[in-house]
Amino acid sequence: MNNEQSFALNKIESQSRPLDTGVVTGAIAGAFLILVTIIASGKALSFINPLGLIMVLGGTFAATMIQFSISEMHQAWLGFRSILYAREEAILERILYFVDLSKKIRREGLLVLDIEATKTKDLYLAKALEITVDGTDPDTIRRVLETEIRTSIEQQLRAVSVFQTMATYAPAFGLIGTIIGLVGLLGSLNSPEAVGPAMSIALMTTLYGALLANLIFLPVAGKLKMRSEEDALISSITIEGVLCIARQDNPIVIEQKLQSFLPSIHTY
Amino acid sequence: MNNEQSFALNKIESQSRPLDTGVVTGAIAGAFLILVTIIASGKALSFINPLGLIMVLGGTFAATMIQFSISEMHQAWLGFRSILYAREEAILERILYFVDLSKKIRREGLLVLDIEATKTKDLYLAKALEITVDGTDPDTIRRVLETEIRTSIEQQLRAVSVFQTMATYAPAFGLIGTIIGLVGLLGSLNSPEAVGPAMSIALMTTLYGALLANLIFLPVAGKLKMRSEEDALISSITIEGVLCIARQDNPIVIEQKLQSFLPSIHTY
Amino acid sequence: MNNEQSFALNKIESQSRPLDTGVVTGAIAGAFLILVTIIASGKALSFINPLGLIMVLGGTFAATMIQFSISEMHQAWLGFRSILYAREEAILERILYFVDLSKKIRREGLLVLDIEATKTKDLYLAKALEITVDGTDPDTIRRVLETEIRTSIEQQLRAVSVFQTMATYAPAFGLIGTIIGLVGLLGSLNSPEAVGPAMSIALMTTLYGALLANLIFLPVAGKLKMRSEEDALISSITIEGVLCIARQDNPIVIEQKLQSFLPSIHTY
Amino acid sequence: MNNEQSFALNKIESQSRPLDTGVVTGAIAGAFLILVTIIASGKALSFINPLGLIMVLGGTFAATMIQFSISEMHQAWLGFRSILYAREEAILERILYFVDLSKKIRREGLLVLDIEATKTKDLYLAKALEITVDGTDPDTIRRVLETEIRTSIEQQLRAVSVFQTMATYAPAFGLIGTIIGLVGLLGSLNSPEAVGPAMSIALMTTLYGALLANLIFLPVAGKLKMRSEEDALISSITIEGVLCIARQDNPIVIEQKLQSFLPSIHTY
Amino acid sequence: MNNEQSFALNKIESQSRPLDTGVVTGAIAGAFLILVTIIASGKALSFINPLGLIMVLGGTFAATMIQFSISEMHQAWLGFRSILYAREEAILERILYFVDLSKKIRREGLLVLDIEATKTKDLYLAKALEITVDGTDPDTIRRVLETEIRTSIEQQLRAVSVFQTMATYAPAFGLIGTIIGLVGLLGSLNSPEAVGPAMSIALMTTLYGALLANLIFLPVAGKLKMRSEEDALISSITIEGVLCIARQDNPIVIEQKLQSFLPSIHTY
Repeated sequence: MNNEQSFALNKIESQSRPLDTGVVTGAIAGAFLILVTIIASGKALSFINPLGLIMVLGGTFAATMIQFSISEMHQAWLGFRSILYAREEAILERILYFVDLSKKIRREGLLVLDIEATKTKDLYLAKALEITVDGTDPDTIRRVLETEIRTSIEQQLRAVSVFQTMATYAPAFGLIGTIIGLVGLLGSLNSPEAVGPAMSIALMTTLYGALLANLIFLPVAGKLKMRSEEDALISSITIEGVLCIARQDNPIVIEQKLQSFLPSIHTY
Repeated sequence: MNNEQSFALNKIESQSRPLDTGVVTGAIAGAFLILVTIIASGKALSFINPLGLIMVLGGTFAATMIQFSISEMHQAWLGFRSILYAREEAILERILYFVDLSKKIRREGLLVLDIEATKTKDLYLAKALEITVDGTDPDTIRRVLETEIRTSIEQQLRAVSVFQTMATYAPAFGLIGTIIGLVGLLGSLNSPEAVGPAMSIALMTTLYGALLANLIFLPVAGKLKMRSEEDALISSITIEGVLCIARQDNPIVIEQKLQSFLPSIHTY
Repeated sequence: MNNEQSFALNKIESQSRPLDTGVVTGAIAGAFLILVTIIASGKALSFINPLGLIMVLGGTFAATMIQFSISEMHQAWLGFRSILYAREEAILERILYFVDLSKKIRREGLLVLDIEATKTKDLYLAKALEITVDGTDPDTIRRVLETEIRTSIEQQLRAVSVFQTMATYAPAFGLIGTIIGLVGLLGSLNSPEAVGPAMSIALMTTLYGALLANLIFLPVAGKLKMRSEEDALISSITIEGVLCIARQDNPIVIEQKLQSFLPSIHTY
Repeated sequence: MNNEQSFALNKIESQSRPLDTGVVTGAIAGAFLILVTIIASGKALSFINPLGLIMVLGGTFAATMIQFSISEMHQAWLGFRSILYAREEAILERILYFVDLSKKIRREGLLVLDIEATKTKDLYLAKALEITVDGTDPDTIRRVLETEIRTSIEQQLRAVSVFQTMATYAPAFGLIGTIIGLVGLLGSLNSPEAVGPAMSIALMTTLYGALLANLIFLPVAGKLKMRSEEDALISSITIEGVLCIARQDNPIVIEQKLQSFLPSIHTY
Repeated sequence: MNNEQSFALNKIESQSRPLDTGVVTGAIAGAFLILVTIIASGKALSFINPLGLIMVLGGTFAATMIQFSISEMHQAWLGFRSILYAREEAILERILYFVDLSKKIRREGLLVLDIEATKTKDLYLAKALEITVDGTDPDTIRRVLETEIRTSIEQQLRAVSVFQTMATYAPAFGLIGTIIGLVGLLGSLNSPEAVGPAMSIALMTTLYGALLANLIFLPVAGKLKMRSEEDALISSITIEGVLCIARQDNPIVIEQKLQSFLPSIHTY
């Protein structure tokens, strides 16, 4: 089984991709805005609380480690890194690919698929083309490819779930940190001038929890989910495409069928 | 592929439409009520906090940009603009259209569809008519048109999701702003007369977050979702309509079948 | 199309119905209990804050108007009025109706349906009977009647959704009002004796929001949803009933089939 | 129709059943722990606030009465009483019952079902046996029995919904009571020594709301839901069982099919 | 029925398994971080409140006991213990097992299954192999095995539900404890120096509730759910595997079909 090879391929591919401007701009802009607000508060140094940060981040990771296996957290980490990189607009491209492919098959015969399967870097497409050129019957093609994409999407959604879980734990551990801080503070109520700074230290963990959840964990979970949905759509097109080829549909019919995956009309 | 043309068409169309009275009245009334309440509080100037507004709005946008692609945010923006404009009551109209059309076909033959397809400004209807006049078999018609509407609705729902996400982030960044403000405030507890104004500045971001979420993001998300459901219903009628035509149903049967899409009876 | 006529019929019908004792008792009891608690607090006059009420109610309506069309809000209003009136226990009645009807058909023939369709005041039942006497095939009967009930239920659920949306906005605008009030209050911290009354005015909007949501919007939404489910069940019985008639089932078999809609056994 | 009879039977049965040790122990232990904590606070008398309790409980009931019909609330009440009583472990028993029954039929013929139907106290089982001995075709048996259990479960879930609704309203009315109390308190800020007791009275309704929701309404709703799922499972076994009999399956095959309803393997 | 035997087998098996490093590391790290934060607050002794802990834990258990049966809580306990132990990576192994098995059958005939069924320690696999060697038809095999896994998963999800329920009750009883503590505290407002410590005692139950929910109940519920999904996937592979064998598929086809359960491609 060539899992290692497939991972290797993906890694090479991802490193050569450009950065995702939306993700990078959003992250920098968000961090910058928070920084400006903190500086404008006139107490920038009060916002540095290493123990509080370790507690919130560590508590969040600890609870997440109990819930997920190490391989799932590794997947989540790979997913986290992958969203920094842009993706080419793949839906339209995949449709055009199948229309071209069906014309090529008309001219040069079904064995073209074999060559195409070795040329493409997308392992799912390669598998779909190979299984089709083998003359497998359409029902089995559909079954095998649908099972494959379903288990892949389920694994991706588990990485999404890692970040959603972290987005739940981070504010909770922020609150826990603040309560612990408050208890420390309540013992020194007799020295009122110490209340302010102690209170602001206690509040830090709540702030960290809210920032981690809303600037990192939730957006990353959302992004990974969006990409999974896109993967699922491209896979649907791929399944429909090879089924058209297996059924030897006319290129015009193929174009018509696949174009319906493009939401060209009811957009705003 | 004629995506650009379709967008262009939609744009022209949308600009000539009248404003949606409900949306405009609601927005103005809501803003007016908040303004009156603010003025009645006797401290109207305290409610102006440009940095706070930038922080809440900017943080919300930043987190949303991480999660969604730029084209999805552009779609959301187009959706936002589109809800300012009214829509004609399309459900009944579409039913009557198909009843008339089926009568016309009886008199003048199936080729009437070709003329109708060029006359209509609705691209989905045009496609449905064209695919029917081509003599495609009913099952393929249904498959192609259902895939098309499903992907369109999915794209629309992603725009809905942009606003729902913003409605989640806005109060969160409001709270983050207030905590940052509180920390600034807690350092100056020794000058009690400064606490009041500092506290009210800190509270501003919470207010901005709540207003943005409840007067803009949530209602806009809700409106876009409603319109998507309406689009889906009209598309169901269109699919049923062209299938009736493809099966050469009697105009009376067509009327009977399509009228069942009108909820005329179990209303209050 | 006889929409107007159908609405008219419904209106006449609803006005002659007795009040729903549960709804009326609940509303009066709830209002009474709140009133007693307010009076017992010894500051009854503090609870009157017209501007606050206008702001919460107005803001809720404004946000709802952005989200829903005027016809949907009108439907919600009709729904609101309708729940004041009781409904006869229709499920058992409808089953007995079909058992009787099937016996009548045995004796007097299928044309009895025509007379029955003109006698009944329920437009859905009338349509079901008419479509059956026309000799439509069972599959089409089921399709037409199911589409009809589905679109009706969807419209009813949109009215439910109006009230659920209001139940979300009301506490939010209550909170917004309280924050605005707090800001007004924080400026006058130097006159401590004014804090109490100002604070209690600020809290009024939160109270109004909570009361509106929990005594009006949520219960009304729940009630409308319950009635929709009941309508859907009665329609299922009606569809099953006319299908039995169309298939010329034995009255005993009809009774057996329809009685299974009565949850007579696994109740507590 | 023998609804009354069925209710009567159920009632007799339930009174002779032993108490459910889990429910009773949980309720007593929970109440005892709260009581101890209250007494340990040293202010046990402060926790008695009859008006507050009436307000929270009454408000909850009032809002629930608007939402549900009187018969649904009566069902909820019957459900509430029923969970005090234990249930025999019915799943395994039902499987063994059908295996024995199929052997008996082998020996003594299908008419044994008639005798069994009169012997059993479970009305659903009786109906299933009767409809099978009548020689109804398997498809109709399945349809009738599935409709019956679906409507029964829907009615049970409405009782669940009554308690879930109450669990939502109770804390809301607790909060409403506390706000009303706070307003009364804020007027007497000039006499600081009165603030403490007044505040603790105001907090009582929040406490009552939280206790009612978490010690009564939520657990009862959860319990009723669990029992509904169990009923649904037993009904699935019953349907499968009578279908096996109707198809004259071999006792060994029946045992094999029904045993698969027993989760004997993937337990921890 | 061999339930007891199956439990016994499972128990022996689980005791010989190594500890799950993720779960153990997470739990120790989480507890350590909380401890460090508490010690750093300088008031470590304030965090010991046995009555508060008993109240929160006891209240949570009491409410859960009302909702779930004793056997369900016992299952939850067994599940809790089981997650401390690691699981071998079973998905790939199960696929390879079936590929090997199909080759063995080619060489040695179908009766190999009988020997394999006695060799395996996995009772579900044993049952699947036995039912296949008996020559049961594929449809019945699928039905029986799917019913079995569905009821097993449902029972596992009930154990998940026990912990999710506890994660809901724990913070609620934490809040209830804090309110009760606050009331005790509010009576002694005249001795301000006592307020601080009393307040910190009152806050303890909120802290306990948050820690129990976020470091124990939620992660355990999440872990058990993950493992259930894994069990369901392995069972799907098992069902597909024995169906392939029953249909006498070629080993190459079996490998192709089963490999599609491995998400080798769309990972990050």
